[in-house]
Amino acid sequence: MPIVRIEMWPGRTQAQKAELARVITEAMVNIAHTTPEATIIIFEDVPRENWAQGGVLASEQ
Amino acid sequence: MPIVRIEMWPGRTQAQKAELARVITEAMVNIAHTTPEATIIIFEDVPRENWAQGGVLASEQ
Amino acid sequence: MPIVRIEMWPGRTQAQKAELARVITEAMVNIAHTTPEATIIIFEDVPRENWAQGGVLASEQ
Amino acid sequence: MPIVRIEMWPGRTQAQKAELARVITEAMVNIAHTTPEATIIIFEDVPRENWAQGGVLASEQ
Amino acid sequence: MPIVRIEMWPGRTQAQKAELARVITEAMVNIAHTTPEATIIIFEDVPRENWAQGGVLASEQ
Amino acid sequence: MPIVRIEMWPGRTQAQKAELARVITEAMVNIAHTTPEATIIIFEDVPRENWAQGGVLASEQ
Repeated sequence: MPIVRIEMWPGRTQAQKAELARVITEAMVNIAHTTPEATIIIFEDVPRENWAQGGVLASEQ
Repeated sequence: MPIVRIEMWPGRTQAQKAELARVITEAMVNIAHTTPEATIIIFEDVPRENWAQGGVLASEQ
Repeated sequence: MPIVRIEMWPGRTQAQKAELARVITEAMVNIAHTTPEATIIIFEDVPRENWAQGGVLASEQ
Repeated sequence: MPIVRIEMWPGRTQAQKAELARVITEAMVNIAHTTPEATIIIFEDVPRENWAQGGVLASEQ
Repeated sequence: MPIVRIEMWPGRTQAQKAELARVITEAMVNIAHTTPEATIIIFEDVPRENWAQGGVLASEQ
Repeated sequence: MPIVRIEMWPGRTQAQKAELARVITEAMVNIAHTTPEATIIIFEDVPRENWAQGGVLASEQ
């Protein structure tokens, strides 16, 4: 604890994910007073054809 | 808000997902009084070998 | 299967949830060719103080 | 109901998932007094490059 | 890792949750070859009025 | 998109959640190149009696 789950469209590099993991863990430690070791971050890549807003798939917008 | 998440076995076409996104967004707007733009729908395809009911994987039923 | 999960702010009545369950199950059956019995719908009420967009909690917007 | 969701790194065989499904369903029935048919288990394979702990991606540890 | 998430209707006692946590962690260790310390289990109580199957809320069945 | 979901034990103040929302949205914008308006953050408070690690509920550790 805590567990942070990040859903994004595909296309972020490993370097971007590594940087997000580093900065968000730091925020959890500084603001929520947890430890880095207790902070788990999970990325989920959601393809545009599996995502809709306004009733329309992102792959068709 | 709202966020609607739909887990299904693979095999639905893009046309079926597009139609589900359209109809479910319409239901959210008409019944829950949200707006189309605020309504996000995410599809997740769950392979049969990752799904069990009755203690048995769907891929082995 | 399928499982549909709907996150909304609190405030919808039981009648609205019942109507959403009915209409969305119907959509899943008609469009995704599943059965009503196999369709599970879960509502999650997310309080405004647990939801942020644009970097600001909804309870402070 | 109930729904059990298991996130793991990839690498478990189908035989391991089948055994987990069998044993966990049995536990739900014996301890939580549900039925096997009502117990759904979903596995999600999370790649190491999508998982961080201690601020570092598992793929870089 | 792994993370196990269990959604159930309310009504299970703390003793039942403790027993489920013990037995499921044991299954993860024995079958999936993880460690107890790496195994996180989260229970989520879903009220019957937030759960529908067959297009009908469980609270109205 | 993106959607960030943060599960923590209860006890964080609204001020801490507001600060987390601000800082994490900023990180998503700077590192993942999204917009603040597209970034949704959801907090979920998980009671200690619903969380186990090492096979033991946190409320009993």
